[in-house]
Amino acid sequence: MIDATLHPDRLFPADPATRAIARSLFAKVEHMPIVSPHGHTDPTWWGDNPSFSNAADLFVIPDHYVVRMLVSQGVPFEDLGVGAATDPRAVWRRFAAHYHLFAATPSRLWLDHAFQTVFGLTQRLSETTADMFYDAIGAALATEACKPRALYDRFGIEAIATTDSALDDLAHHRAVRDSDWSGRVVPTYRPDACVDPEFDGFTDNLARLGEITGCDTTTWAGYLDAHRARRACFIELGATATDHGHPTAATLDLPQDEAAALFARVSRNAGAPGDAEAFRAQMLTEMARMSVDDGLVMQLHAGSSRNHSDMVHARYGRDRGFDIPARTDFTGGLRPLLNAVGMDSRLTLILFTLDESTYARELAPLAGAYPCLRLGPPWWFHDSYEGMLRFRERVTETAGFANTAGFNDDTRALCSIPARHDVARRVDCAFLAQQVVTHRLSEEEAHALIPDLTTGLAKKAYNL
Amino acid sequence: MIDATLHPDRLFPADPATRAIARSLFAKVEHMPIVSPHGHTDPTWWGDNPSFSNAADLFVIPDHYVVRMLVSQGVPFEDLGVGAATDPRAVWRRFAAHYHLFAATPSRLWLDHAFQTVFGLTQRLSETTADMFYDAIGAALATEACKPRALYDRFGIEAIATTDSALDDLAHHRAVRDSDWSGRVVPTYRPDACVDPEFDGFTDNLARLGEITGCDTTTWAGYLDAHRARRACFIELGATATDHGHPTAATLDLPQDEAAALFARVSRNAGAPGDAEAFRAQMLTEMARMSVDDGLVMQLHAGSSRNHSDMVHARYGRDRGFDIPARTDFTGGLRPLLNAVGMDSRLTLILFTLDESTYARELAPLAGAYPCLRLGPPWWFHDSYEGMLRFRERVTETAGFANTAGFNDDTRALCSIPARHDVARRVDCAFLAQQVVTHRLSEEEAHALIPDLTTGLAKKAYNL
Amino acid sequence: MIDATLHPDRLFPADPATRAIARSLFAKVEHMPIVSPHGHTDPTWWGDNPSFSNAADLFVIPDHYVVRMLVSQGVPFEDLGVGAATDPRAVWRRFAAHYHLFAATPSRLWLDHAFQTVFGLTQRLSETTADMFYDAIGAALATEACKPRALYDRFGIEAIATTDSALDDLAHHRAVRDSDWSGRVVPTYRPDACVDPEFDGFTDNLARLGEITGCDTTTWAGYLDAHRARRACFIELGATATDHGHPTAATLDLPQDEAAALFARVSRNAGAPGDAEAFRAQMLTEMARMSVDDGLVMQLHAGSSRNHSDMVHARYGRDRGFDIPARTDFTGGLRPLLNAVGMDSRLTLILFTLDESTYARELAPLAGAYPCLRLGPPWWFHDSYEGMLRFRERVTETAGFANTAGFNDDTRALCSIPARHDVARRVDCAFLAQQVVTHRLSEEEAHALIPDLTTGLAKKAYNL
Repeated sequence: MIDATLHPDRLFPADPATRAIARSLFAKVEHMPIVSPHGHTDPTWWGDNPSFSNAADLFVIPDHYVVRMLVSQGVPFEDLGVGAATDPRAVWRRFAAHYHLFAATPSRLWLDHAFQTVFGLTQRLSETTADMFYDAIGAALATEACKPRALYDRFGIEAIATTDSALDDLAHHRAVRDSDWSGRVVPTYRPDACVDPEFDGFTDNLARLGEITGCDTTTWAGYLDAHRARRACFIELGATATDHGHPTAATLDLPQDEAAALFARVSRNAGAPGDAEAFRAQMLTEMARMSVDDGLVMQLHAGSSRNHSDMVHARYGRDRGFDIPARTDFTGGLRPLLNAVGMDSRLTLILFTLDESTYARELAPLAGAYPCLRLGPPWWFHDSYEGMLRFRERVTETAGFANTAGFNDDTRALCSIPARHDVARRVDCAFLAQQVVTHRLSEEEAHALIPDLTTGLAKKAYNL
Repeated sequence: MIDATLHPDRLFPADPATRAIARSLFAKVEHMPIVSPHGHTDPTWWGDNPSFSNAADLFVIPDHYVVRMLVSQGVPFEDLGVGAATDPRAVWRRFAAHYHLFAATPSRLWLDHAFQTVFGLTQRLSETTADMFYDAIGAALATEACKPRALYDRFGIEAIATTDSALDDLAHHRAVRDSDWSGRVVPTYRPDACVDPEFDGFTDNLARLGEITGCDTTTWAGYLDAHRARRACFIELGATATDHGHPTAATLDLPQDEAAALFARVSRNAGAPGDAEAFRAQMLTEMARMSVDDGLVMQLHAGSSRNHSDMVHARYGRDRGFDIPARTDFTGGLRPLLNAVGMDSRLTLILFTLDESTYARELAPLAGAYPCLRLGPPWWFHDSYEGMLRFRERVTETAGFANTAGFNDDTRALCSIPARHDVARRVDCAFLAQQVVTHRLSEEEAHALIPDLTTGLAKKAYNL
Repeated sequence: MIDATLHPDRLFPADPATRAIARSLFAKVEHMPIVSPHGHTDPTWWGDNPSFSNAADLFVIPDHYVVRMLVSQGVPFEDLGVGAATDPRAVWRRFAAHYHLFAATPSRLWLDHAFQTVFGLTQRLSETTADMFYDAIGAALATEACKPRALYDRFGIEAIATTDSALDDLAHHRAVRDSDWSGRVVPTYRPDACVDPEFDGFTDNLARLGEITGCDTTTWAGYLDAHRARRACFIELGATATDHGHPTAATLDLPQDEAAALFARVSRNAGAPGDAEAFRAQMLTEMARMSVDDGLVMQLHAGSSRNHSDMVHARYGRDRGFDIPARTDFTGGLRPLLNAVGMDSRLTLILFTLDESTYARELAPLAGAYPCLRLGPPWWFHDSYEGMLRFRERVTETAGFANTAGFNDDTRALCSIPARHDVARRVDCAFLAQQVVTHRLSEEEAHALIPDLTTGLAKKAYNL
């Protein structure tokens, strides 16, 4: 069996002088609490505190990073328990036999970290160790110490946000609030299902939004009121932010009568070509205006071509690893919104991209000018060692640190949360150490900055 | 008070062997004269040699890098003396209190360098040291040693180009020529105001161009003649170059009758959609043809979406830090111009971009083929340590060094000139040291190249 | 004379600990055989085994990297023997006098390697050494040891693919097969001339394709059959792959009656605007379907704007260094093809790009999901030290190593083949060493991976 014990210097620069600085910075933040202002953990976990069932259900089947990599190398979805009921131990063995595929990927860093720090497994996962891992993880999952709320405490989480549909009843958030558990779990208002005319069941969703709120969502004014009402419910349960997943960063600021006419078309399924995109664009500006009023921080995750494979979507559903990024235009796209409310100090709009070519060209110049803008951390495919370094290298010289929003783990994989924050902290220490050794920052400045990068900026940007 | 003395090894690589090579290269060029073939210093300074008034007027209010960063963090323009008459000491204190925002930005490198080398201030600027800095800088500015021509000499400037409207009377350049001062200050022909139909006052500018030159600028032929006449005046005062700031790199080479018809439309404010862009595109090719004739080196600065915020533009004017880059297409855009005159050895066209994704994909392949093309140094947001390294890493393998045009400081901030050249020289030494230590260049080759990168290539590209 | 002996540590990282790991990895693969699954060597060499004539004909005149660099610095094509019969020694002297232009380019690495390892010349090429080099190379070329088949053996080539027109009679490949030489030289089916309606002589090419195959290429069905027939001929002579050079990555999957109508238009030269692009796009999907049937691995080289200068094309022909990359959209472009056959395990489609911004944004996510996709190595301008590092850094974290296709030298310059593989192996060792020293991979994993990166992945991807 191969020893895979995490090295204490992992992700630190090779040069000994630089590494020493990184180590000393990391010592300061390694054990700071985790602030997780954006992510996709299941509210059921926090509300009901159930046990997880087995290693395959925890680490493989729901993880689109893992599933897509195995599929890309010819493993059928069905063999991974997707689109078929498959024995979880068989799924796990298949995963273990292919674990070498993850060499040099962030998934490997996250998984090894979880195996070791949550389950005490320090060997390399492989065909040989598959059953041993499966059994050990299974046994641990049956204990109290591995139930969600216990993990929250073990992980040192200070606050965590979930991401919730505008149509969600937030029962689990209510359960947390009404419990005697001290964890801070807050919802995030994600209205895509009621904002995107191309979302499955959009017109039904509008009707449902009307029922929930008592607003007349057949009219533009009533529809906007319904959003306001739902936002208020989210705020009441602790929400500090909204989140918007859009294929592009296009925004519009139409005169209200034109917006109402556009709504009339899309809400009756009578949109012309371009109307769906126009409506999403208009709604970003409307949501920004609501944020000015109610104080919810706005997040925009733009640029993913969701469900790129029709067959995978039809047969296996959403979020199976077949969402592919495309070019994204922030400079032109955001202009209508920014002209409407971009100089208003009450607004915070946090931008995320999958198009790294926009970091230095568009996002840093925009965030380095408009008071409302902050840059979210590297997202999805870029939530990685190299991705984080590229982000810092391309963004910092123009936008500084204060125009960034700290780290988000953005995950539905609970056990990866400490690993992801660990990686982010290490990369930030590596980046600052490089600044110090090249005399762009003093060591004192780096020590003053690292707690901000770790949690300070996130708490400030998200009002947490 | 915190010591902020510049470290002699700043910006050199961390690895000791690589650093030693960088140091030895830098020793060769550290004190070479400054050649500044493109920039925006005020000709009044050189013609009249006035005293600067105070630290805020020198370092804060006119510096769009500084102002936009403070605005991005919620400081109102008015508090920075923009759009309001504000006590300069109050402006300075506000700037000093926010100086930490500039950590890890080029502005910090430039400002610290100027504070120390021009004013002898080696502490870190902060709320605590604000008044001390303000007073010391103010006292120095009152002396002869801090007047523009004295700074030119102290900075070791060998030649500097300003950037001047086609409508400028060049009186200050004439004053320099007619003075007994030995500084070499040359104008640069920047005709945007008379070439871009979307420029404020375009039609008035055409009329004015006619008055100045005696040409009939209501006709296409007369309009072109007017440009020829103005270029001749610039040449007479030492100009060696033109400069063109365009939103895109589009060029056109229309038949002359179509070009004349296009001019007729835009000059009468009767342009159709697309005419403004077409006219700018056509004029780049016309200007290239004029350069073939009169020998002026042509510069194209493409890709800035100027005045992105309507409100900032309306209330505070141009150049306030709200110009945001956008994607730029050089491969398709330049083709008509290059087909017209791209193989003519009499033309030099220096390209600048804000879209780094074009470095390796478009600019290096273009410059590594067409004899007329040279690549300008990293521009604006990319005039930075990381930006310069990215430029060299992406461009050199395809275009070599000889197809680049050396360094431009491109600044209106006089005291930052030595700092900017210092940064560029250090980064080039770091880059070459990296080449040497990985045995891609010999140390002798690096020593032969570094003076070229420092001033040789700039003098050659700009005929200075 | 300047010593230019290749340093054994060239291209390895500066940090001593990292360098030591790179050295140890390289020791394992330095002398492994060369597998060259994609390239442009002349089949005549392998079929006839002629002598090369002189240094200029071998190293300068046919090398578009060399010619374009000299042209970019003002050397006329004619002086380089292009478009004029020029004394080869004069061409060589001109090249030698400008050899400094190649400092820090891959061409320098390749040429120095060839001079030293093939011809034993360890001085730096320059005006001074020009004649000495010319004579020494000329003398060597007259010997048996420098004939193509001998070089194949000296270079340790295990298999090499050429790239051949769909209209080629493959006589030289037949000659190799029927000879007693043991070299493995296989053709690659490149049908651009019969697939791209904008290719010179397209309609004549269709007629010729009909003649060769006996298929009725005036009909859509007959035309597709003709491709099938030619592919079968290629397969019979050892081909394992096809190759497609397209200006974009656009694909289409039209209903067959629409495809037939489109073919009818373009084959009669009656295409509407957009038809040529649509036909190329449709044909990629048709070729993918044929690959599903006959097992040929498909390669797509997308994104070059060929013959950017009309004058150079008209006067000096194709492949003169005036092909310029442009932005390429894989996410949208490939979707129709991938929806048609992207989940079929019988297909392998290897993607190449000149637009590095697609590495992390599009190509790695696509290859990390679709089972048919593999990523080809950095192509053309990016076949370089920095280019290869960027590729690994941007691709690996999302796609892993197994979704890449190993190295291609992709060259028509026979003597550069060992040099190119040497560079690729060194960069991969440098990359893996960096992974090891930052504890992202164990040293054992790196040792297990390096033979795969060297030849294993290439053999697997290309079925060689």
